[in-house]
Amino acid sequence: MSVYENLKKLNITLPPVAKPVASYVMYVQSGNLVFLSGHLGKQDGKPRVGQFGKDITVAEGQKVARQAAIDMIGTLQDACGGDLTKVKRIVKVLALVNSTPDFTDHHLVTNGASDLLVEVFGEIGKHARSAFGVAQIPTGACLEIELIAEIEA
Amino acid sequence: MSVYENLKKLNITLPPVAKPVASYVMYVQSGNLVFLSGHLGKQDGKPRVGQFGKDITVAEGQKVARQAAIDMIGTLQDACGGDLTKVKRIVKVLALVNSTPDFTDHHLVTNGASDLLVEVFGEIGKHARSAFGVAQIPTGACLEIELIAEIEA
Amino acid sequence: MSVYENLKKLNITLPPVAKPVASYVMYVQSGNLVFLSGHLGKQDGKPRVGQFGKDITVAEGQKVARQAAIDMIGTLQDACGGDLTKVKRIVKVLALVNSTPDFTDHHLVTNGASDLLVEVFGEIGKHARSAFGVAQIPTGACLEIELIAEIEA
Repeated sequence: MSVYENLKKLNITLPPVAKPVASYVMYVQSGNLVFLSGHLGKQDGKPRVGQFGKDITVAEGQKVARQAAIDMIGTLQDACGGDLTKVKRIVKVLALVNSTPDFTDHHLVTNGASDLLVEVFGEIGKHARSAFGVAQIPTGACLEIELIAEIEA
Repeated sequence: MSVYENLKKLNITLPPVAKPVASYVMYVQSGNLVFLSGHLGKQDGKPRVGQFGKDITVAEGQKVARQAAIDMIGTLQDACGGDLTKVKRIVKVLALVNSTPDFTDHHLVTNGASDLLVEVFGEIGKHARSAFGVAQIPTGACLEIELIAEIEA
Repeated sequence: MSVYENLKKLNITLPPVAKPVASYVMYVQSGNLVFLSGHLGKQDGKPRVGQFGKDITVAEGQKVARQAAIDMIGTLQDACGGDLTKVKRIVKVLALVNSTPDFTDHHLVTNGASDLLVEVFGEIGKHARSAFGVAQIPTGACLEIELIAEIEA
């Protein structure tokens, strides 16, 4: 199935590209690689504030991470001139998880994003990844995810 | 205006490439991409020690971030064989901000670096970016920034 | 000396590629670049749990970082179809060091990995690098390292 059939099946409507909260742009392409800025974890269009190990659960976090992946796919669509079929590979994900010094399930939270990428892109959605706990995130968001993708030249 | 005219207008003298504090080099080129090592936030040539949310303000941090960007431009000039006009695009910035678990203005601190990159490089200085709070930074520096740039082959 | 002669001299046997602990793959190649996932710091095949500044020393950490580099070389060998001589350059290392807010020797810990990469690959093992302290790491591991390498097309 194509990426658009998968999005339809999953009942996902892609959002427009987010506005940066500061002095940067949401993506830059260099050669065949597109580098996406960190996308904040959101709920109802606003940063989902919280810190894992204190006031947000893994299950909630997975939903927020899934939404961040949807937001990144929206950004990728823009980077592809509106046509996601030009994505050749999701290459690398870096997931920053706002957590207390004793929370150790960053990988489970991040699966919310990784699983969605594979559901939408199939085999080419499988990516390299690092996930870890950070002291805080801009605006207090519970997570922030950036991504590198390969697209058609 | 060219990058060198901008630097002159801003009264910026580029420093020589910093010496790594450990077993690495300050940049590596692969194809058209140059990957810069993390550059520590400095003041008067020494790491500016401090943690946001505790003993350094956003305004001070922006000046340190601006200096880190100047240091990175110095490193880039070396990567370009002395000629910054070979820079085609500032692609990606990763900003690590030494912060307490309740500081949430990492993006404002990092703007000190991002704004300078755009002042110097203009349109091609606009970059993708992630900024977040880390538990600590080598030597206790208040921030550390790395960068990916595209340069002429 | 070749990389395999160096490995023999160092008495290093490369491990098979690790199994990801979540929804990702251990590496993805795009063009000439291979992006490795974060490799957890291990001891005797299991994550070495600990936080620098609290319950693990720099000397112990250097051994764990060295082992993470060996694990990454094993992953790289797989990415090269079994032939490490196809590695053209170790480009970039990102080292996440699980540390308390007052530990500041992340660079010394990370040298355990960087030194090994240079011992094995020689001049082409010299890499750009960022190292910093994170709040926590999946499974509680004391460190996590990711790597970008350039290999023959």
